Amino acid sequence: MSKESYWTQDPSGLLRVESGFKLVASPTDGHPGFDGNKAAGRAALKEGALVLADLQERLFAHHQTGDDGRRILLVLQAMDTAGKGGILKHVIGTVDPQGVQLAAFKKPTDEELEHDFLWRIRKEVPEPGNIGVFDRSHYEDVLIARVREFATPEEIERRYGAINEFEAELVGEGTAIIKVMLHISAEEQKKRLLDRLRRREKQWKYNPSDVDERMLGPKYQEAYQIAFDRTSTPIAPWYVVPADHKWYARLAVQHLLIQALQALELEWPKPDYDVEAEKARLIAS
Amino acid sequence: MSKESYWTQDPSGLLRVESGFKLVASPTDGHPGFDGNKAAGRAALKEGALVLADLQERLFAHHQTGDDGRRILLVLQAMDTAGKGGILKHVIGTVDPQGVQLAAFKKPTDEELEHDFLWRIRKEVPEPGNIGVFDRSHYEDVLIARVREFATPEEIERRYGAINEFEAELVGEGTAIIKVMLHISAEEQKKRLLDRLRRREKQWKYNPSDVDERMLGPKYQEAYQIAFDRTSTPIAPWYVVPADHKWYARLAVQHLLIQALQALELEWPKPDYDVEAEKARLIAS
Repeated sequence: MSKESYWTQDPSGLLRVESGFKLVASPTDGHPGFDGNKAAGRAALKEGALVLADLQERLFAHHQTGDDGRRILLVLQAMDTAGKGGILKHVIGTVDPQGVQLAAFKKPTDEELEHDFLWRIRKEVPEPGNIGVFDRSHYEDVLIARVREFATPEEIERRYGAINEFEAELVGEGTAIIKVMLHISAEEQKKRLLDRLRRREKQWKYNPSDVDERMLGPKYQEAYQIAFDRTSTPIAPWYVVPADHKWYARLAVQHLLIQALQALELEWPKPDYDVEAEKARLIAS
Repeated sequence: MSKESYWTQDPSGLLRVESGFKLVASPTDGHPGFDGNKAAGRAALKEGALVLADLQERLFAHHQTGDDGRRILLVLQAMDTAGKGGILKHVIGTVDPQGVQLAAFKKPTDEELEHDFLWRIRKEVPEPGNIGVFDRSHYEDVLIARVREFATPEEIERRYGAINEFEAELVGEGTAIIKVMLHISAEEQKKRLLDRLRRREKQWKYNPSDVDERMLGPKYQEAYQIAFDRTSTPIAPWYVVPADHKWYARLAVQHLLIQALQALELEWPKPDYDVEAEKARLIAS
Protein backbone atom coordinates (compact mmCIF):
# COMPACT_ATOMS: atom_id res chain seq x y z
CA MET A 1 0.00 0.00 0.00
CA SER A 2 1.53 3.32 -1.02
CA LYS A 3 1.66 6.15 1.48
CA GLU A 4 1.54 9.86 0.99
CA SER A 5 5.05 11.19 1.53
CA TYR A 6 4.29 14.88 1.44
CA TRP A 7 3.24 15.36 5.04
CA THR A 8 5.92 16.61 7.40
CA GLN A 9 3.72 15.58 10.31
CA ASP A 10 0.50 13.57 10.47
CA PRO A 11 -2.20 16.23 10.14
CA SER A 12 -4.84 14.14 11.86
CA GLY A 13 -3.10 14.54 15.20
CA LEU A 14 -2.75 18.26 14.59
CA LEU A 15 -6.37 18.79 13.59
CA ARG A 16 -8.16 16.48 16.00
CA VAL A 17 -10.35 18.17 18.61
CA GLU A 18 -9.01 17.10 21.98
CA SER A 19 -10.13 18.11 25.43
CA GLY A 20 -9.40 21.81 25.95
CA PHE A 21 -9.70 22.72 22.28
CA LYS A 22 -10.90 26.29 21.69
CA LEU A 23 -12.39 27.13 18.31
CA VAL A 24 -11.93 30.90 18.74
CA ALA A 25 -8.19 30.32 19.19
CA SER A 26 -7.94 27.98 16.23
CA PRO A 27 -6.30 29.46 13.10
CA THR A 28 -8.11 29.43 9.76
CA ASP A 29 -5.21 30.20 7.47
CA GLY A 30 -2.54 27.67 8.33
CA HIS A 31 -1.54 24.42 6.68
CA PRO A 32 -0.48 22.20 9.59
CA GLY A 33 1.71 19.29 8.62
CA PHE A 34 2.27 20.47 5.07
CA ASP A 35 5.31 22.54 4.29
CA GLY A 36 4.53 23.76 0.79
CA ASN A 37 2.60 26.26 -1.26
CA LYS A 38 -0.61 26.02 -3.28
CA ALA A 39 1.08 24.43 -6.31
CA ALA A 40 2.73 21.80 -4.13
CA GLY A 41 -0.59 21.22 -2.37
CA ARG A 42 -2.37 20.65 -5.65
CA ALA A 43 0.30 18.23 -6.85
CA ALA A 44 0.01 16.37 -3.56
CA LEU A 45 -3.77 16.17 -3.95
CA LYS A 46 -3.32 14.45 -7.31
CA GLU A 47 -0.87 11.98 -5.80
CA GLY A 48 -3.21 11.32 -2.89
CA ALA A 49 -6.14 10.78 -5.26
CA LEU A 50 -4.45 7.65 -6.60
CA VAL A 51 -3.92 6.29 -3.09
CA LEU A 52 -7.50 7.08 -2.14
CA ALA A 53 -8.96 5.51 -5.29
CA ASP A 54 -7.02 2.30 -4.69
CA LEU A 55 -8.18 2.05 -1.09
CA GLN A 56 -11.77 2.84 -1.98
CA GLU A 57 -11.78 0.07 -4.56
CA ARG A 58 -10.50 -2.40 -1.97
CA LEU A 59 -13.28 -1.39 0.41
CA PHE A 60 -15.84 -1.80 -2.35
CA ALA A 61 -14.38 -5.16 -3.38
CA HIS A 62 -14.62 -6.46 0.17
CA HIS A 63 -18.30 -5.78 0.31
CA GLN A 64 -19.01 -7.17 -3.16
CA THR A 65 -17.45 -10.45 -2.14
CA GLY A 66 -19.66 -10.74 0.92
CA ASP A 67 -17.35 -9.37 3.54
CA ASP A 68 -18.25 -7.56 6.78
CA GLY A 69 -20.10 -4.29 7.26
CA ARG A 70 -17.19 -1.91 7.01
CA ARG A 71 -17.83 1.52 5.56
CA ILE A 72 -16.72 5.12 5.91
CA LEU A 73 -18.85 8.10 6.88
CA LEU A 74 -17.48 11.57 6.32
CA VAL A 75 -19.50 14.26 8.06
CA LEU A 76 -18.95 17.76 6.63
CA GLN A 77 -20.00 20.82 8.55
CA ALA A 78 -19.14 24.44 7.82
CA MET A 79 -20.41 27.96 7.44
CA ASP A 80 -21.42 29.01 3.90
CA THR A 81 -18.59 29.21 1.35
CA ALA A 82 -16.16 27.31 3.58
CA GLY A 83 -15.64 24.77 0.82
CA LYS A 84 -17.87 21.73 1.36
CA GLY A 85 -18.72 21.71 -2.31
CA GLY A 86 -15.05 21.79 -3.25
CA ILE A 87 -14.36 18.78 -1.04
CA LEU A 88 -17.15 16.87 -2.75
CA LYS A 89 -15.89 17.80 -6.20
CA HIS A 90 -12.14 17.57 -5.74
CA VAL A 91 -11.73 14.88 -3.09
CA ILE A 92 -14.81 12.67 -3.25
CA GLY A 93 -15.11 13.30 -7.00
CA THR A 94 -11.82 11.47 -7.63
CA VAL A 95 -13.01 8.07 -6.45
CA ASP A 96 -15.26 5.69 -8.34
CA PRO A 97 -18.80 7.08 -8.01
CA GLN A 98 -20.15 3.54 -7.67
CA GLY A 99 -18.73 3.35 -4.16
CA VAL A 100 -19.87 6.77 -2.96
CA GLN A 101 -23.13 7.74 -1.26
CA LEU A 102 -23.76 11.45 -0.90
CA ALA A 103 -26.50 12.88 1.26
CA ALA A 104 -27.14 16.62 1.45
CA PHE A 105 -29.26 17.66 4.41
CA LYS A 106 -31.19 20.86 3.79
CA LYS A 107 -33.92 22.50 5.78
CA PRO A 108 -36.06 19.62 7.11
CA THR A 109 -39.38 18.97 5.38
CA ASP A 110 -42.66 18.95 7.29
CA GLU A 111 -42.60 15.17 7.28
CA GLU A 112 -39.07 15.12 8.65
CA LEU A 113 -40.01 17.56 11.38
CA GLU A 114 -42.72 15.19 12.57
CA HIS A 115 -40.04 12.63 13.45
CA ASP A 116 -37.04 12.57 15.75
CA PHE A 117 -34.12 14.52 14.28
CA LEU A 118 -32.19 11.31 13.56
CA TRP A 119 -35.00 9.82 11.49
CA ARG A 120 -33.94 11.38 8.21
CA ILE A 121 -30.28 10.80 9.04
CA ARG A 122 -30.66 7.07 9.59
CA LYS A 123 -32.14 6.66 6.12
CA GLU A 124 -28.91 7.96 4.59
CA VAL A 125 -26.35 5.94 6.52
CA PRO A 126 -23.98 4.51 3.88
CA GLU A 127 -24.19 0.89 2.82
CA PRO A 128 -21.30 -1.43 3.69
CA GLY A 129 -18.43 -1.12 1.22
CA ASN A 130 -19.18 2.52 0.52
CA ILE A 131 -17.82 5.90 1.42
CA GLY A 132 -20.76 7.95 2.61
CA VAL A 133 -20.64 11.71 2.84
CA PHE A 134 -23.03 13.89 4.79
CA ASP A 135 -23.11 17.41 3.37
CA ARG A 136 -24.39 18.95 6.59
CA SER A 137 -25.76 16.39 8.99
CA HIS A 138 -27.43 15.66 12.32
CA TYR A 139 -25.17 18.37 13.72
CA GLU A 140 -27.41 21.00 12.16
CA ASP A 141 -29.86 19.97 14.85
CA VAL A 142 -27.52 21.28 17.54
CA LEU A 143 -26.04 24.13 15.48
CA ILE A 144 -28.62 26.11 13.53
CA ALA A 145 -31.27 24.65 15.84
CA ARG A 146 -29.44 26.14 18.81
CA VAL A 147 -28.62 29.49 17.21
CA ARG A 148 -32.07 29.98 15.70
CA GLU A 149 -33.88 28.38 18.65
CA PHE A 150 -35.69 25.81 16.53
CA ALA A 151 -35.84 23.52 19.56
CA THR A 152 -36.06 24.00 23.33
CA PRO A 153 -32.82 24.03 25.35
CA GLU A 154 -33.88 20.71 26.93
CA GLU A 155 -34.31 19.11 23.52
CA ILE A 156 -30.96 20.43 22.28
CA GLU A 157 -29.39 19.10 25.45
CA ARG A 158 -30.89 15.67 24.84
CA ARG A 159 -29.56 15.61 21.31
CA TYR A 160 -25.86 15.61 22.21
CA GLY A 161 -26.37 12.35 24.04
CA ALA A 162 -28.55 10.94 21.28
CA ILE A 163 -25.85 11.80 18.73
CA ASN A 164 -23.16 10.04 20.75
CA GLU A 165 -25.32 6.96 21.07
CA PHE A 166 -26.16 6.99 17.38
CA GLU A 167 -22.52 7.32 16.39
CA ALA A 168 -21.44 4.58 18.80
CA GLU A 169 -24.04 2.35 17.18
CA LEU A 170 -22.66 3.10 13.70
CA VAL A 171 -19.09 2.44 14.83
CA GLY A 172 -20.26 -0.83 16.37
CA GLU A 173 -21.64 -1.87 12.98
CA GLY A 174 -18.28 -1.27 11.29
CA THR A 175 -18.49 2.39 10.29
CA ALA A 176 -15.44 4.60 10.56
CA ILE A 177 -16.72 8.12 11.21
CA ILE A 178 -14.73 11.20 10.23
CA LYS A 179 -16.28 14.47 11.40
CA VAL A 180 -14.88 17.58 9.77
CA MET A 181 -15.56 21.23 10.38
CA LEU A 182 -14.12 23.47 7.68
CA HIS A 183 -12.98 26.58 9.47
CA ILE A 184 -12.75 29.90 7.62
CA SER A 185 -12.31 33.46 8.81
CA ALA A 186 -15.03 36.07 8.56
CA GLU A 187 -12.83 38.03 6.12
CA GLU A 188 -12.31 35.07 3.82
CA GLN A 189 -16.04 34.38 3.89
CA LYS A 190 -16.80 37.96 2.90
CA LYS A 191 -14.38 37.66 -0.02
CA ARG A 192 -15.98 34.45 -1.23
CA LEU A 193 -19.53 35.74 -0.91
CA LEU A 194 -18.56 38.88 -2.83
CA ASP A 195 -17.06 36.69 -5.51
CA ARG A 196 -20.38 34.86 -5.81
CA LEU A 197 -22.20 38.15 -6.19
CA ARG A 198 -19.79 39.43 -8.81
CA ARG A 199 -19.67 36.45 -11.12
CA ARG A 200 -22.65 35.67 -13.32
CA GLU A 201 -22.03 31.94 -13.19
CA LYS A 202 -21.82 31.99 -9.40
CA GLN A 203 -24.76 34.22 -8.54
CA TRP A 204 -27.11 31.25 -8.26
CA LYS A 205 -25.08 30.02 -5.30
CA TYR A 206 -25.79 33.17 -3.32
CA ASN A 207 -28.81 33.58 -1.10
CA PRO A 208 -29.62 36.73 0.89
CA SER A 209 -29.95 34.56 4.00
CA ASP A 210 -26.20 33.89 3.69
CA VAL A 211 -25.56 37.37 5.10
CA ASP A 212 -28.11 36.88 7.89
CA GLU A 213 -26.33 33.68 8.89
CA ARG A 214 -22.97 35.37 8.57
CA MET A 215 -23.98 38.02 11.07
CA LEU A 216 -24.68 35.23 13.54
CA GLY A 217 -21.08 34.00 13.16
CA PRO A 218 -20.12 34.36 16.84
CA LYS A 219 -23.24 32.48 17.93
CA TYR A 220 -22.40 29.68 15.53
CA GLN A 221 -18.84 29.55 16.87
CA GLU A 222 -20.29 29.07 20.31
CA ALA A 223 -22.64 26.35 19.12
CA TYR A 224 -19.77 24.56 17.37
CA GLN A 225 -17.65 24.79 20.50
CA ILE A 226 -20.36 23.15 22.60
CA ALA A 227 -20.89 20.48 19.94
CA PHE A 228 -17.16 19.72 19.98
CA ASP A 229 -17.07 19.60 23.78
CA ARG A 230 -19.99 17.21 23.89
CA THR A 231 -19.48 15.01 20.83
CA SER A 232 -15.78 14.78 20.03
CA THR A 233 -15.40 11.27 21.38
CA PRO A 234 -12.49 8.83 21.07
CA ILE A 235 -14.48 6.66 18.66
CA ALA A 236 -15.78 9.58 16.57
CA PRO A 237 -13.56 12.62 17.02
CA TRP A 238 -14.01 15.96 15.33
CA TYR A 239 -11.35 17.50 13.11
CA VAL A 240 -11.23 21.26 12.65
CA VAL A 241 -9.61 21.94 9.30
CA PRO A 242 -8.24 25.42 8.48
CA ALA A 243 -10.03 26.27 5.25
CA ASP A 244 -8.94 29.74 4.19
CA HIS A 245 -6.67 27.86 1.77
CA LYS A 246 -8.98 25.63 -0.23
CA TRP A 247 -6.07 23.51 -1.42
CA TYR A 248 -5.09 22.70 2.16
CA ALA A 249 -8.57 21.81 3.33
CA ARG A 250 -8.96 19.39 0.43
CA LEU A 251 -5.59 17.77 1.06
CA ALA A 252 -6.29 17.40 4.77
CA VAL A 253 -9.72 15.82 4.29
CA GLN A 254 -8.28 13.52 1.65
CA HIS A 255 -5.68 12.44 4.19
CA LEU A 256 -8.29 11.73 6.86
CA LEU A 257 -10.09 9.46 4.41
CA ILE A 258 -6.87 7.73 3.38
CA GLN A 259 -5.94 7.16 6.99
CA ALA A 260 -9.33 5.74 7.92
CA LEU A 261 -9.18 3.36 4.97
CA GLN A 262 -5.59 2.30 5.65
CA ALA A 263 -6.59 1.41 9.19
CA LEU A 264 -8.94 -1.21 7.76
CA GLU A 265 -5.93 -3.08 6.28
CA LEU A 266 -7.84 -4.08 3.18
CA GLU A 267 -6.16 -6.78 1.12
CA TRP A 268 -7.81 -7.78 -2.13
CA PRO A 269 -10.41 -10.39 -1.24
CA LYS A 270 -9.60 -14.02 -2.00
CA PRO A 271 -11.68 -15.55 -4.82
CA ASP A 272 -14.31 -18.01 -3.61
CA TYR A 273 -14.06 -19.97 -6.88
CA ASP A 274 -11.35 -22.14 -8.42
CA VAL A 275 -9.37 -19.74 -10.61
CA GLU A 276 -7.75 -22.40 -12.80
CA ALA A 277 -10.99 -24.30 -13.35
CA GLU A 278 -12.71 -21.05 -14.35
CA LYS A 279 -9.94 -20.17 -16.79
CA ALA A 280 -10.41 -23.55 -18.47
CA ARG A 281 -14.17 -23.16 -18.59
CA LEU A 282 -13.89 -19.66 -20.01
CA ILE A 283 -11.38 -20.62 -22.69
CA ALA A 284 -13.67 -23.45 -23.79
CA SER A 285 -16.68 -21.14 -23.99
CA MET B 1 -21.40 27.32 -24.94
CA SER B 2 -18.34 25.47 -26.20
CA LYS B 3 -18.74 22.53 -28.52
CA GLU B 4 -16.66 19.43 -29.02
CA SER B 5 -14.75 19.85 -32.27
CA TYR B 6 -13.28 16.38 -32.54
CA TRP B 7 -16.21 14.59 -34.14
CA THR B 8 -16.10 14.25 -37.92
CA GLN B 9 -19.78 13.38 -37.87
CA ASP B 10 -22.40 13.52 -35.10
CA PRO B 11 -22.16 10.06 -33.53
CA SER B 12 -25.69 10.17 -32.16
CA GLY B 13 -27.13 9.86 -35.65
CA LEU B 14 -24.75 7.02 -36.40
CA LEU B 15 -25.49 5.08 -33.22
CA ARG B 16 -29.22 5.62 -32.85
CA VAL B 17 -31.37 2.54 -33.27
CA GLU B 18 -33.75 3.25 -36.12
CA SER B 19 -36.35 1.03 -37.72
CA GLY B 20 -34.63 -1.89 -39.48
CA PHE B 21 -31.61 -1.91 -37.14
CA LYS B 22 -30.06 -5.36 -36.74
CA LEU B 23 -27.86 -5.97 -33.71
CA VAL B 24 -26.17 -9.02 -35.24
CA ALA B 25 -24.98 -6.89 -38.15
CA SER B 26 -23.80 -4.07 -35.91
CA PRO B 27 -20.00 -3.78 -35.51
CA THR B 28 -18.42 -3.83 -32.07
CA ASP B 29 -14.96 -2.56 -32.96
CA GLY B 30 -15.54 0.66 -34.87
CA HIS B 31 -15.38 4.28 -33.82
CA PRO B 32 -18.09 5.96 -35.88
CA GLY B 33 -17.72 9.71 -36.20
CA PHE B 34 -14.26 9.81 -34.67
CA ASP B 35 -11.26 9.69 -36.93
CA GLY B 36 -8.44 9.12 -34.44
CA ASN B 37 -6.68 6.57 -32.31
CA LYS B 38 -6.80 5.75 -28.62
CA ALA B 39 -4.52 8.59 -27.58
CA ALA B 40 -6.60 11.09 -29.54
CA GLY B 41 -9.75 9.59 -28.05
CA ARG B 42 -8.45 10.01 -24.55
CA ALA B 43 -7.45 13.61 -25.20
CA ALA B 44 -10.90 14.26 -26.61
CA LEU B 45 -12.51 12.73 -23.52
CA LYS B 46 -10.63 15.21 -21.34
CA GLU B 47 -11.75 18.10 -23.50
CA GLY B 48 -15.33 16.86 -23.44
CA ALA B 49 -15.23 16.48 -19.66
CA LEU B 50 -14.92 20.26 -19.30
CA VAL B 51 -17.91 20.82 -21.57
CA LEU B 52 -19.95 18.23 -19.71
CA ALA B 53 -19.04 19.61 -16.28
CA ASP B 54 -20.10 23.11 -17.32
CA LEU B 55 -23.43 21.91 -18.67
CA GLN B 56 -24.09 19.74 -15.64
CA GLU B 57 -23.52 22.69 -13.34
CA ARG B 58 -26.00 24.77 -15.32
CA LEU B 59 -28.60 22.03 -15.00
CA PHE B 60 -27.96 21.82 -11.29
CA ALA B 61 -28.10 25.60 -10.90
CA HIS B 62 -31.45 25.75 -12.65
CA HIS B 63 -32.98 23.39 -10.19
CA GLN B 64 -31.40 25.03 -7.13
CA THR B 65 -33.00 28.30 -8.14
CA GLY B 66 -36.44 26.77 -8.34
CA ASP B 67 -36.66 26.09 -12.03
CA ASP B 68 -38.61 23.38 -13.84
CA GLY B 69 -38.30 19.60 -13.54
CA ARG B 70 -35.59 19.04 -16.11
CA ARG B 71 -33.19 16.18 -15.55
CA ILE B 72 -31.21 13.57 -17.47
CA LEU B 73 -31.53 9.81 -17.21
CA LEU B 74 -28.80 7.66 -18.70
CA VAL B 75 -29.77 4.00 -18.93
CA LEU B 76 -26.80 1.66 -19.29
CA GLN B 77 -27.25 -1.91 -20.44
CA ALA B 78 -24.58 -4.38 -21.49
CA MET B 79 -23.22 -7.88 -21.15
CA ASP B 80 -20.58 -8.39 -18.43
CA THR B 81 -17.25 -6.62 -18.98
CA ALA B 82 -18.66 -4.39 -21.73
CA GLY B 83 -17.58 -1.32 -19.76
CA LYS B 84 -20.48 0.06 -17.73
CA GLY B 85 -18.17 0.56 -14.78
CA GLY B 86 -15.69 2.46 -16.93
CA ILE B 87 -18.45 4.79 -18.12
CA LEU B 88 -19.40 5.51 -14.51
CA LYS B 89 -15.81 6.14 -13.50
CA HIS B 90 -14.47 8.00 -16.51
CA VAL B 91 -17.53 9.83 -17.85
CA ILE B 92 -19.92 10.28 -14.93
CA GLY B 93 -16.98 10.51 -12.52
CA THR B 94 -15.83 13.75 -14.12
CA VAL B 95 -18.89 15.80 -13.16
CA ASP B 96 -19.69 17.19 -9.75
CA PRO B 97 -20.94 14.26 -7.65
CA GLN B 98 -23.53 16.53 -6.03
CA GLY B 99 -25.52 16.52 -9.24
CA VAL B 100 -25.35 12.80 -9.95
CA GLN B 101 -27.70 10.03 -8.84
CA LEU B 102 -26.50 6.50 -9.50
CA ALA B 103 -28.71 3.47 -9.16
CA ALA B 104 -27.38 -0.04 -9.70
CA PHE B 105 -30.07 -2.65 -10.23
CA LYS B 106 -29.00 -6.11 -9.19
CA LYS B 107 -31.01 -9.29 -8.81
CA PRO B 108 -34.37 -8.18 -7.36
CA THR B 109 -34.98 -8.80 -3.67
CA ASP B 110 -37.96 -10.81 -2.43
CA GLU B 111 -39.73 -7.58 -1.56
CA GLU B 112 -39.09 -6.17 -5.02
CA LEU B 113 -40.40 -9.35 -6.62
CA GLU B 114 -43.69 -8.91 -4.80
CA HIS B 115 -44.28 -5.67 -6.71
CA ASP B 116 -44.59 -4.76 -10.36
CA PHE B 117 -41.19 -4.68 -12.08
CA LEU B 118 -41.27 -0.86 -12.28
CA TRP B 119 -41.77 -0.42 -8.53
CA ARG B 120 -38.10 -0.46 -7.64
CA ILE B 121 -37.25 1.57 -10.74
CA ARG B 122 -39.63 4.42 -9.90
CA LYS B 123 -37.95 4.88 -6.55
CA GLU B 124 -34.66 5.68 -8.29
CA VAL B 125 -35.85 8.16 -10.91
CA PRO B 126 -33.46 11.13 -10.67
CA GLU B 127 -34.48 14.34 -8.97
CA PRO B 128 -34.86 17.48 -11.11
CA GLY B 129 -31.51 19.15 -11.75
CA ASN B 130 -29.62 15.88 -11.64
CA ILE B 131 -28.03 13.46 -14.02
CA GLY B 132 -29.35 10.04 -13.08
CA VAL B 133 -27.66 6.87 -14.21
CA PHE B 134 -29.21 3.42 -14.19
CA ASP B 135 -26.51 0.75 -14.08
CA ARG B 136 -28.77 -1.94 -15.51
CA SER B 137 -32.43 -1.01 -15.39
CA HIS B 138 -36.02 -1.96 -16.08
CA TYR B 139 -34.68 -3.52 -19.26
CA GLU B 140 -33.33 -6.44 -17.25
CA ASP B 141 -36.99 -7.39 -16.88
CA VAL B 142 -37.26 -8.01 -20.60
CA LEU B 143 -33.67 -9.23 -21.10
CA ILE B 144 -32.50 -11.67 -18.44
CA ALA B 145 -36.15 -12.25 -17.57
CA ARG B 146 -36.79 -13.36 -21.15
CA VAL B 147 -33.61 -15.41 -21.55
CA ARG B 148 -33.90 -17.11 -18.17
CA GLU B 149 -37.70 -17.34 -18.30
CA PHE B 150 -38.20 -15.50 -15.01
CA ALA B 151 -41.61 -14.37 -16.26
CA THR B 152 -44.28 -15.76 -18.57
CA PRO B 153 -44.23 -14.76 -22.24
CA GLU B 154 -47.48 -12.82 -21.66
CA GLU B 155 -45.93 -10.84 -18.81
CA ILE B 156 -42.78 -10.07 -20.84
CA GLU B 157 -45.02 -8.97 -23.68
CA ARG B 158 -46.94 -6.64 -21.35
CA ARG B 159 -43.70 -5.10 -20.11
CA TYR B 160 -42.63 -3.57 -23.42
CA GLY B 161 -45.78 -1.48 -23.42
CA ALA B 162 -45.42 -0.65 -19.73
CA ILE B 163 -41.85 0.52 -20.34
CA ASN B 164 -42.90 2.78 -23.19
CA GLU B 165 -45.65 4.29 -21.06
CA PHE B 166 -43.30 4.76 -18.13
CA GLU B 167 -40.67 6.45 -20.26
CA ALA B 168 -43.26 8.70 -21.93
CA GLU B 169 -44.35 9.75 -18.46
CA LEU B 170 -40.76 10.60 -17.48
CA VAL B 171 -40.23 12.58 -20.67
CA GLY B 172 -43.48 14.42 -19.98
CA GLU B 173 -42.12 15.46 -16.59
CA GLY B 174 -38.98 16.95 -18.16
CA THR B 175 -36.61 14.00 -18.24
CA ALA B 176 -34.29 13.52 -21.21
CA ILE B 177 -33.72 9.77 -21.52
CA ILE B 178 -30.58 8.34 -23.12
CA LYS B 179 -30.63 4.57 -23.47
CA VAL B 180 -27.29 2.99 -24.23
CA MET B 181 -26.31 -0.58 -24.98
CA LEU B 182 -22.56 -1.13 -24.88
CA HIS B 183 -21.86 -3.65 -27.61
CA ILE B 184 -18.80 -5.92 -27.39
CA SER B 185 -17.78 -9.00 -29.32
CA ALA B 186 -17.64 -12.46 -27.77
CA GLU B 187 -13.86 -12.48 -28.34
CA GLU B 188 -13.32 -9.18 -26.57
CA GLN B 189 -15.47 -10.38 -23.69
CA LYS B 190 -13.39 -13.55 -23.36
CA LYS B 191 -10.21 -11.46 -23.27
CA ARG B 192 -11.61 -9.20 -20.54
CA LEU B 193 -12.90 -12.06 -18.42
CA LEU B 194 -9.52 -13.81 -18.69
CA ASP B 195 -7.87 -10.60 -17.60
CA ARG B 196 -10.09 -10.56 -14.51
CA LEU B 197 -9.11 -14.12 -13.70
CA ARG B 198 -5.41 -13.44 -14.18
CA ARG B 199 -5.05 -10.30 -12.09
CA ARG B 200 -5.21 -10.55 -8.33
CA GLU B 201 -6.79 -7.12 -7.97
CA LYS B 202 -9.48 -7.97 -10.51
CA GLN B 203 -10.45 -11.47 -9.41
CA TRP B 204 -13.17 -10.12 -7.13
CA LYS B 205 -15.00 -8.81 -10.19
CA TYR B 206 -15.31 -12.30 -11.63
CA ASN B 207 -18.19 -14.62 -10.90
CA PRO B 208 -18.56 -18.14 -12.31
CA SER B 209 -22.04 -17.21 -13.48
CA ASP B 210 -20.37 -14.77 -15.91
CA VAL B 211 -19.44 -17.74 -18.11
CA ASP B 212 -22.94 -19.21 -17.86
CA GLU B 213 -24.37 -15.90 -19.02
CA ARG B 214 -21.74 -15.63 -21.72
CA MET B 215 -22.81 -18.96 -23.18
CA LEU B 216 -26.30 -17.53 -23.55
CA GLY B 217 -24.90 -14.67 -25.67
CA PRO B 218 -27.00 -15.40 -28.79
CA LYS B 219 -30.18 -15.55 -26.72
CA TYR B 220 -29.34 -12.21 -25.16
CA GLN B 221 -28.70 -10.74 -28.60
CA GLU B 222 -32.17 -11.85 -29.59
CA ALA B 223 -33.69 -10.37 -26.43
CA TYR B 224 -31.89 -7.06 -27.04
CA GLN B 225 -33.10 -7.02 -30.64
CA ILE B 226 -36.70 -7.41 -29.55
CA ALA B 227 -36.28 -4.77 -26.85
CA PHE B 228 -34.90 -2.35 -29.45
CA ASP B 229 -37.71 -3.13 -31.87
CA ARG B 230 -40.31 -2.52 -29.21
CA THR B 231 -38.87 0.33 -27.13
CA SER B 232 -36.63 2.46 -29.34
CA THR B 233 -39.12 5.30 -29.61
CA PRO B 234 -38.68 8.82 -31.00
CA ILE B 235 -38.86 10.28 -27.48
CA ALA B 236 -36.55 7.69 -25.91
CA PRO B 237 -34.38 6.06 -28.57
CA TRP B 238 -31.74 3.43 -27.98
CA TYR B 239 -28.11 3.92 -28.92
CA VAL B 240 -25.93 0.91 -29.61
CA VAL B 241 -22.34 1.92 -28.88
CA PRO B 242 -19.43 -0.18 -30.20
CA ALA B 243 -17.48 -0.99 -27.06
CA ASP B 244 -14.52 -3.15 -28.03
CA HIS B 245 -12.54 0.10 -27.74
CA LYS B 246 -13.23 1.36 -24.25
CA TRP B 247 -11.99 4.83 -25.13
CA TYR B 248 -14.54 5.13 -27.92
CA ALA B 249 -17.50 3.93 -25.87
CA ARG B 250 -16.68 6.50 -23.18
CA LEU B 251 -16.32 9.31 -25.68
CA ALA B 252 -19.57 8.40 -27.41
CA VAL B 253 -21.60 8.23 -24.20
CA GLN B 254 -20.06 11.50 -23.06
CA HIS B 255 -21.22 13.05 -26.31
CA LEU B 256 -24.77 11.76 -25.90
CA LEU B 257 -24.90 13.41 -22.48
CA ILE B 258 -23.43 16.66 -23.79
CA GLN B 259 -25.92 16.72 -26.63
CA ALA B 260 -28.90 16.09 -24.36
CA LEU B 261 -27.78 18.88 -22.04
CA GLN B 262 -27.08 21.31 -24.86
CA ALA B 263 -30.60 20.74 -26.15
CA LEU B 264 -31.90 22.19 -22.87
CA GLU B 265 -30.26 25.56 -23.72
CA LEU B 266 -29.34 26.25 -20.13
CA GLU B 267 -28.31 29.80 -19.44
CA TRP B 268 -27.15 30.65 -15.94
CA PRO B 269 -30.29 31.40 -13.93
CA LYS B 270 -31.07 35.04 -13.19
CA PRO B 271 -30.67 36.02 -9.52
CA ASP B 272 -33.99 36.56 -7.74
CA TYR B 273 -32.37 39.11 -5.42
CA ASP B 274 -30.98 42.61 -5.93
CA VAL B 275 -27.28 42.04 -6.61
CA GLU B 276 -26.16 45.59 -5.80
CA ALA B 277 -28.18 45.77 -2.60
CA GLU B 278 -26.71 42.46 -1.46
CA LYS B 279 -23.18 43.63 -2.20
CA ALA B 280 -23.75 46.65 0.01
CA ARG B 281 -25.29 44.56 2.78
CA LEU B 282 -22.44 42.08 2.63
CA ILE B 283 -19.72 44.72 2.67
CA ALA B 284 -21.32 46.29 5.73
CA SER B 285 -21.50 42.95 7.54
